[in-house]
Amino acid sequence: MPVLDLCFSPELLPLYNLSGQTAVIVDVLRASSTIVTALAAGVTHVLPVASLEECAALGRVTGCLTAAERDGQRAPGFDLGNSPFEYLDPARPVAGRALALSTTNGTRALRESLGAAHVVVGTFLNLSAVADFARQQQANVLVVCAGWKGRFCLEDTVFGGALAEQLAPDFDVSSSDAALAARHLWQQAQPDLPAYLLQSAHVRRLNSLEASQDFGFCMEVDRYAAVLPQWREDRLMAW
Amino acid sequence: MPVLDLCFSPELLPLYNLSGQTAVIVDVLRASSTIVTALAAGVTHVLPVASLEECAALGRVTGCLTAAERDGQRAPGFDLGNSPFEYLDPARPVAGRALALSTTNGTRALRESLGAAHVVVGTFLNLSAVADFARQQQANVLVVCAGWKGRFCLEDTVFGGALAEQLAPDFDVSSSDAALAARHLWQQAQPDLPAYLLQSAHVRRLNSLEASQDFGFCMEVDRYAAVLPQWREDRLMAW
Repeated sequence: MPVLDLCFSPELLPLYNLSGQTAVIVDVLRASSTIVTALAAGVTHVLPVASLEECAALGRVTGCLTAAERDGQRAPGFDLGNSPFEYLDPARPVAGRALALSTTNGTRALRESLGAAHVVVGTFLNLSAVADFARQQQANVLVVCAGWKGRFCLEDTVFGGALAEQLAPDFDVSSSDAALAARHLWQQAQPDLPAYLLQSAHVRRLNSLEASQDFGFCMEVDRYAAVLPQWREDRLMAW
Repeated sequence: MPVLDLCFSPELLPLYNLSGQTAVIVDVLRASSTIVTALAAGVTHVLPVASLEECAALGRVTGCLTAAERDGQRAPGFDLGNSPFEYLDPARPVAGRALALSTTNGTRALRESLGAAHVVVGTFLNLSAVADFARQQQANVLVVCAGWKGRFCLEDTVFGGALAEQLAPDFDVSSSDAALAARHLWQQAQPDLPAYLLQSAHVRRLNSLEASQDFGFCMEVDRYAAVLPQWREDRLMAW
């Protein structure tokens, strides 16, 4: 039976052997949610980049859309920020365009997980898509939480717990303490996920109106239940 | 109001600024519990060391007792292992002796926390002693979980949650997600702490008879409610 484990921070990734595994990159607020929404809205692929400079350069050279945030704020000079709603605005359609995306924590977690056999992006919006993919692969799963500046972050962990709960019949989700704890936290959160995660320090940092709307959106379980961003060579594409 | 936070692994310590803080080193199974029990049994002080060689050398040079475990097992050639019961054996009294102790995870967490203003050792056995000390200092508290080979570990985290629960009236225990999660896990565990922690992967690894007895002992909240191992220069002494 394959094993599901969680890595609470990219800082801890060197302790894990990703070879042959399915890595699920999670940055609920907001990179994962934005990537899923962008692909659902018809973006052809997402190029996650580490720096603002690289992001801007990709825009200039390839003509793709550019999106960047730093510390939760939209970075100046880019087409889009890290709010999922920007990808749903009929006045600025994104379908058919590529997107270069730079984010603080999510990009780092993804880049440092590329040793895995499969790298996918998960968030509440596409929970079932991730679970379905994991069941098909039958490989060990490592949920890589983007965290907040390297630290533990509640919403990414609770997503990992939700995934553990879905996969429990087919996966060993109790051989690591991280997976056990995540599942227990999910069970506490599940009756009212938004209310539970409103306690999160990260959520309380996102205290602007835009971020508050984003928060509610990012809590919608399976809004895009069939959208699975998967890494292919140098980009994330819908699977 | 001072803040209580948790660091889930020594690997993450570089992200925290310990200056001016009270660091509470936790390795419930079993280094913290052994240190508290040894001091309660009259050991004059504990010299925590990183290597078996250093531990053995201290024994030869100073005549102190030596204790060492590696991967949960007592290391050969040492006076004692890492089982608290060894310090309570009337046939081999330890009172009045010094103790050099080498452990896998606990010593590392302690050594890497020495930048704090105060470094104390906590475990369920002396929970109230730690809480009382923290209240007296009125400084920020960082609970440093020894973890398991750098990874998250349930029992150390649940201890951190128990401490957060005790300090909640006087400390801000909700400004970090790590403290929030730990407190929630403690609230789940509290009705039957041993049953809850029997799920832990680490506990299931300790499957020998000796370790099983140790486990029950280490779950006794406030058995040594007045024993607080505190770091002084190069050693842990009862405060």
